[in-house]
Amino acid sequence: MEERVDGRKLRFQHRRGEVLTAATEHALEKGLDDLSLRKVAQSAGVSHATLVHHFASKDRLVAEIVDRVLAETLSVPDLPRDDPDPMRAIWRRATGERGRRYVRLFIAITGRAMYGDPALVDAVASSMRQRTELIAAGLVRHGCPEAEAQTVATSLLAGMRGLFVDLLTSGDEQRVNAAFEDLVTELERRVTGWASGS
Amino acid sequence: MEERVDGRKLRFQHRRGEVLTAATEHALEKGLDDLSLRKVAQSAGVSHATLVHHFASKDRLVAEIVDRVLAETLSVPDLPRDDPDPMRAIWRRATGERGRRYVRLFIAITGRAMYGDPALVDAVASSMRQRTELIAAGLVRHGCPEAEAQTVATSLLAGMRGLFVDLLTSGDEQRVNAAFEDLVTELERRVTGWASGS
Repeated sequence: MEERVDGRKLRFQHRRGEVLTAATEHALEKGLDDLSLRKVAQSAGVSHATLVHHFASKDRLVAEIVDRVLAETLSVPDLPRDDPDPMRAIWRRATGERGRRYVRLFIAITGRAMYGDPALVDAVASSMRQRTELIAAGLVRHGCPEAEAQTVATSLLAGMRGLFVDLLTSGDEQRVNAAFEDLVTELERRVTGWASGS
Repeated sequence: MEERVDGRKLRFQHRRGEVLTAATEHALEKGLDDLSLRKVAQSAGVSHATLVHHFASKDRLVAEIVDRVLAETLSVPDLPRDDPDPMRAIWRRATGERGRRYVRLFIAITGRAMYGDPALVDAVASSMRQRTELIAAGLVRHGCPEAEAQTVATSLLAGMRGLFVDLLTSGDEQRVNAAFEDLVTELERRVTGWASGS
């Protein structure tokens, strides 16, 4: 047993990325509230010393997990620029099995940011700003006047964010999906209006 | 000093409500993450024994604080049933100095519910359900077909919830207020449509 742990320790010595992945997986499953280096070490199958070697402290490890979750919930790598239905694609991705776990941790991180350190607030705010810009750019490609794009993007992103929270707490797929369809239908009406120049 | 503490202790002996108010105030200021009976006792000016006498445990105290915050962020006592502009009234109230503190704690509570005990999830979900019903009823009074009311209410509430999060993390009042105005303008367009029967 001792040998196996030592073997793992050696194997993970230069695998910082793998340890971070395991730690992120732990956080996705259990949240950040009860996260400790001891528990992460246990579930990642590495020694406490290895964790400390790579991440120095729990705060540093949490910061890296947060970075990774924000990057993941922000990126939409499987959305081609000319996706004809980007809103539904984002929604499907975020409410799928994998996406839902990330969104749940993102909401938990946002909650912590409310009373957390300024660095956490900045990270969440920066993530929202980037995603707003992405959506605003998409809206402009769909005919939205430049001057309105940021406002509409802020509203759309807020709507989706709020619906995620509703879905993850109420579990009421039918009502929340209907509200999302309503959001998209209203957007499509506006896109038609932009196209006709009204 | 000892006498003053004892005096306070006596005064608070039968004032469970006042202690809860002081504890809620503490949570509004500092959040729930680092909340301890010791800190609450200190900021409420009561003894640890008095707190335990009234609330038995930290979990029980937190549950009562959560109840109170949900009740407060849910209730809209200063909105008359026939308020001509209920959305803006809700927004003004929630983004005012007092409302903002409650909304901030509500968001933090929601974040905790993501990995928290089922009781907390149920409390948040129940709060959202009640508020959705309130808004749906208001929409029907404004001409919204009964069959659409819950969907539109879910979408509106999600939009506001998402905008609160954006406002409290980004601090970008101008962009978020513009997005809220966009939300209301779109709603007003729909109300006009309902009135004309289209």
